[in-house]
Amino acid sequence: MKIAVLGGDGFCGWPTSLHLSSLGHEVHIVDNLSRRWIDTELGVQSLTPMDSIQERCRIWKQETGNEIRFHLLDLAKEYELVRKWLADHRPDAIIHFAEQRAAPYSMKSDRHKVYTVNNNVNATHNLLTAMVETGIDAHLVHLGTMGVYGYSSVGAAIPEGYLDVEIENLEGEKKGLEILYPTRPGSVYHMTKSLDQILFQFYAQNDGLRITDLHQGIVWGTHTDQTRRHPQLINRFDYDGDYGTVLNRFLIQAAIDYPLTVHGTGGQTRAFIHLQDSVRCIELALNDAPKSGDRVKIFNQMTETHRVRDLAELIARLTGARVAYLPNPRKEAAENDLIVRNDQFLCLGLNPTTLEAGLLSEVVEVARKFAHRIDRKHVPAVSAWTKDLAKRVVTDPEAPHLKSVS
Amino acid sequence: MKIAVLGGDGFCGWPTSLHLSSLGHEVHIVDNLSRRWIDTELGVQSLTPMDSIQERCRIWKQETGNEIRFHLLDLAKEYELVRKWLADHRPDAIIHFAEQRAAPYSMKSDRHKVYTVNNNVNATHNLLTAMVETGIDAHLVHLGTMGVYGYSSVGAAIPEGYLDVEIENLEGEKKGLEILYPTRPGSVYHMTKSLDQILFQFYAQNDGLRITDLHQGIVWGTHTDQTRRHPQLINRFDYDGDYGTVLNRFLIQAAIDYPLTVHGTGGQTRAFIHLQDSVRCIELALNDAPKSGDRVKIFNQMTETHRVRDLAELIARLTGARVAYLPNPRKEAAENDLIVRNDQFLCLGLNPTTLEAGLLSEVVEVARKFAHRIDRKHVPAVSAWTKDLAKRVVTDPEAPHLKSVS
Repeated sequence: MKIAVLGGDGFCGWPTSLHLSSLGHEVHIVDNLSRRWIDTELGVQSLTPMDSIQERCRIWKQETGNEIRFHLLDLAKEYELVRKWLADHRPDAIIHFAEQRAAPYSMKSDRHKVYTVNNNVNATHNLLTAMVETGIDAHLVHLGTMGVYGYSSVGAAIPEGYLDVEIENLEGEKKGLEILYPTRPGSVYHMTKSLDQILFQFYAQNDGLRITDLHQGIVWGTHTDQTRRHPQLINRFDYDGDYGTVLNRFLIQAAIDYPLTVHGTGGQTRAFIHLQDSVRCIELALNDAPKSGDRVKIFNQMTETHRVRDLAELIARLTGARVAYLPNPRKEAAENDLIVRNDQFLCLGLNPTTLEAGLLSEVVEVARKFAHRIDRKHVPAVSAWTKDLAKRVVTDPEAPHLKSVS
Repeated sequence: MKIAVLGGDGFCGWPTSLHLSSLGHEVHIVDNLSRRWIDTELGVQSLTPMDSIQERCRIWKQETGNEIRFHLLDLAKEYELVRKWLADHRPDAIIHFAEQRAAPYSMKSDRHKVYTVNNNVNATHNLLTAMVETGIDAHLVHLGTMGVYGYSSVGAAIPEGYLDVEIENLEGEKKGLEILYPTRPGSVYHMTKSLDQILFQFYAQNDGLRITDLHQGIVWGTHTDQTRRHPQLINRFDYDGDYGTVLNRFLIQAAIDYPLTVHGTGGQTRAFIHLQDSVRCIELALNDAPKSGDRVKIFNQMTETHRVRDLAELIARLTGARVAYLPNPRKEAAENDLIVRNDQFLCLGLNPTTLEAGLLSEVVEVARKFAHRIDRKHVPAVSAWTKDLAKRVVTDPEAPHLKSVS
């Protein structure tokens, strides 16, 4: 297949591109490189030394003989060019990662909120409009998030995308109705993924677009089979307070003897998936495309759920690190349960990498190996969800007045 | 109160501004005048001769002594100026009409889809972000649409915004959950109002913004008590295939002996409200503000439901006009029932203008009076929902091969 990977230079996009290329697909990366620009804005860098996208593609060709082509294009800002690109290349499938993907970054300031909504909504909508306009029949696979549902559920298992409800009609009869599982996003970033759902529903219904939406959990891990093939193919690894996902942050905190920073009680339960499983899920989703006229196919892309404090304690035990309980800059439930259905991917043959099996190799292979590149001042999470919460943000968990370090 | 009316130069915005000014409020119109630009783009004009916004405000002051101030500002494109404007003026209430509001225009071409989403989502989100950032405690009243729900319901009455559903938890117990009434918008325009709902839910929950969302039916009528006070205060009246609402279009079709154009079977049931009631509803909603921390307050702003063909036959009887049944350029159910709850406005004292009582005066006072200004070529609705439907669009319902004229 000819596959366009939008946002193919990013944390999930790059290993997905390599995975699909290694399966023999013709891969085209389309990216505006905004994630690299945001590194520059924030003054942070990937823990792993990361080459330019052009150089990465060169090395991939050298190592495997497979070509991945890179196209610099801004999906959100350059509608006319997007349409022309699709008309010229007519991909069979499009994987859409091209959105600003960090909740803390989206809450950093009013400017970051405005950017995230403008970028993410226009990127997705421009793509959908251009697909209709060019008449290409590509299968669109989008990376969404479990986080659209919020985390204050009634303790029911979150189904895969849809919910059957009963509505009483005027004759007093109960009638069944299938609806999108109701969302209650907890950040501007998560909100944009909730908006995406409405866009997908409309274009599947009105224009018969074939769309799969992957509601992914929190990704952890760095390597896949392909990124291991050459040092210059290594994936990015974010450890800063905005882009570092919780488990990856714990790993590098452990590696540099920094307290594992848990916000609030750590009673938040979240869904997780290893990067290797994430790229495999994309492959599985690609091979299971809906037909034109079908509803949007929604998968829950996760393999385990854990409480944040349990993860911290686990890594503390493995590595001897301390755990620091800090005030939570996010507006969210202090404690929540989370049960998620992921039957569809298991049925399609996903064989998950467990946290227990993969964790220690990450610490050794990545966190300790590159620990000398860590800038400690970027480790704290400083983006607060409201102005009130901003007053409680702790920028130095090692400060002597903090008594909550366990 | 100091009230900002965003989009105050438009079809609903202008009579609302006059109504609120006549009640003694300090009214500020904020508008980018895009609706006038779209007239220019489409080569159409209001049936009623409409002065510039500056001239209209001058006449209002001359007639009443009340000042309405006009501020040229683009909500969607000029975030920094919007924030500054709010910080400088600190309104007590904000009425938000500032969105592209025609479904056919939003479906006209890919460019119009892109514009509608970009404009409407960014306008609403910029406003919400700026309200949080400036810390003003204004009550936001937004004009949404009944159309977010689509028209293929299970025959239940559409409640005011929310639905109680039951979800079975892991112990097999049924737990109640209140959710936003599920939307299924039928055009890009309606979709943007569905996106707005998600934005409002988030900012009410995260930042305690006080928001009322009015899900309005199709507005008909031209005059309010205030627009009648002087010929130069007259409201705009759109009759073209993009911006003319169905009932207003029937009225002018009758006035110029043009067939009343019904699309499909005319079995579509829609909700209606007279313009005078619409401005009164805004006043009622303003006086019934939610508290910070409350959920978004949602009203159904409509007073009657009718099938489109029944309206056409009614006007045909009143005026002697013919009815032409044409292929439907919209993708929608051919026939639907619609029952809508509007208890909240009735409780607050709304006393509706009925269609039966107001219709004939509209024909005489507006449609016949300005019939000489009508350009017949702009009467057909030509925006199709999909490329397939575009092939069936009829641009001349008077063509001899059309046998469906009754």
